[in-house]
Amino acid sequence: MAHIALGVDEHEFPGITGPMRFRPETAKPLNELAEVLLRAPHSMPPGERELIAAYVSSLNNCHFCASSHSAFAAVQLDEGMSLVAQVRADLESAPVSDKLRALLRIAGAVQRGGLNVTTDLVDAARAAGATDVEIHDSVLIAAAFCMFNRYVDGLGTYAPEPPEAYLPGAERIVERGYVGSV
Amino acid sequence: MAHIALGVDEHEFPGITGPMRFRPETAKPLNELAEVLLRAPHSMPPGERELIAAYVSSLNNCHFCASSHSAFAAVQLDEGMSLVAQVRADLESAPVSDKLRALLRIAGAVQRGGLNVTTDLVDAARAAGATDVEIHDSVLIAAAFCMFNRYVDGLGTYAPEPPEAYLPGAERIVERGYVGSV
Repeated sequence: MAHIALGVDEHEFPGITGPMRFRPETAKPLNELAEVLLRAPHSMPPGERELIAAYVSSLNNCHFCASSHSAFAAVQLDEGMSLVAQVRADLESAPVSDKLRALLRIAGAVQRGGLNVTTDLVDAARAAGATDVEIHDSVLIAAAFCMFNRYVDGLGTYAPEPPEAYLPGAERIVERGYVGSV
Repeated sequence: MAHIALGVDEHEFPGITGPMRFRPETAKPLNELAEVLLRAPHSMPPGERELIAAYVSSLNNCHFCASSHSAFAAVQLDEGMSLVAQVRADLESAPVSDKLRALLRIAGAVQRGGLNVTTDLVDAARAAGATDVEIHDSVLIAAAFCMFNRYVDGLGTYAPEPPEAYLPGAERIVERGYVGSV
């Protein structure tokens, strides 16, 4: 049971979907932000941007967001869930490009707090080929999931346990996007 | 100097205003979210909602956001900056209502991580008269500033030191709002 009466069946509307129905006025900009950061046309494919979201949500121990965005990343990456699981388990040994690893390191620093992002981390990302927009968006994706994770867990929402429970949501996001799924 | 080339004079566009000019596509939903949470018609006056933003930004040691939202709160509260300073220095002894103190305690829990919000904290806010929307919005304001703070500091943006430097921004927000100030 969530901390407030969301007015929905939480098994039908788990995680963030309950609060989004409770307060559509805030759901609108939240979904628009997710759409721009994770799905809009970009030099980084949606699967890589979802991987940053899954990684940060995992660091924040947010079961709903980590499970959701792991599924959203997996269905949009050639390497699927095995790559997502490797990044979540140990970023340093995971088989990702130097550029993506450098951007994930920046995201991990943002998760601990913005002041942890050093010039060295940013220089390393740039040396591996990251553009200023890619660095900006990696910082903002990580920051945004420090919000989404706290929103979902701060309201005590229900999160299904098994990974398979998150697959229908992944199909919906890939087909219709964040704004169109509401 | 920010970590990326923002394309603006950082002394003219300090803190979040530089990244918002660099990436207007993400600035739009970010400003819309701030407008709904902090300024839209609500049972809690804007000054109290800005106080939650200032308190969380202070806990996150984000100088730009803590200074900005302290100024935005002060100009919209009868008790002005002295109340803001007392809340930031010691919430438990600050002269705020029982309801606002309970909501600020929830915000502080969200800042540490969403799973720190307990049923006891929520029950105490409700017993002090808080509605479900007020509890929801306190959680989301706190969560949103865990994003804004990380965005501002994660990009290494410039923040003026003296509190007076934040007064023109406060006048602009009160007059034109977040969306209208861009």
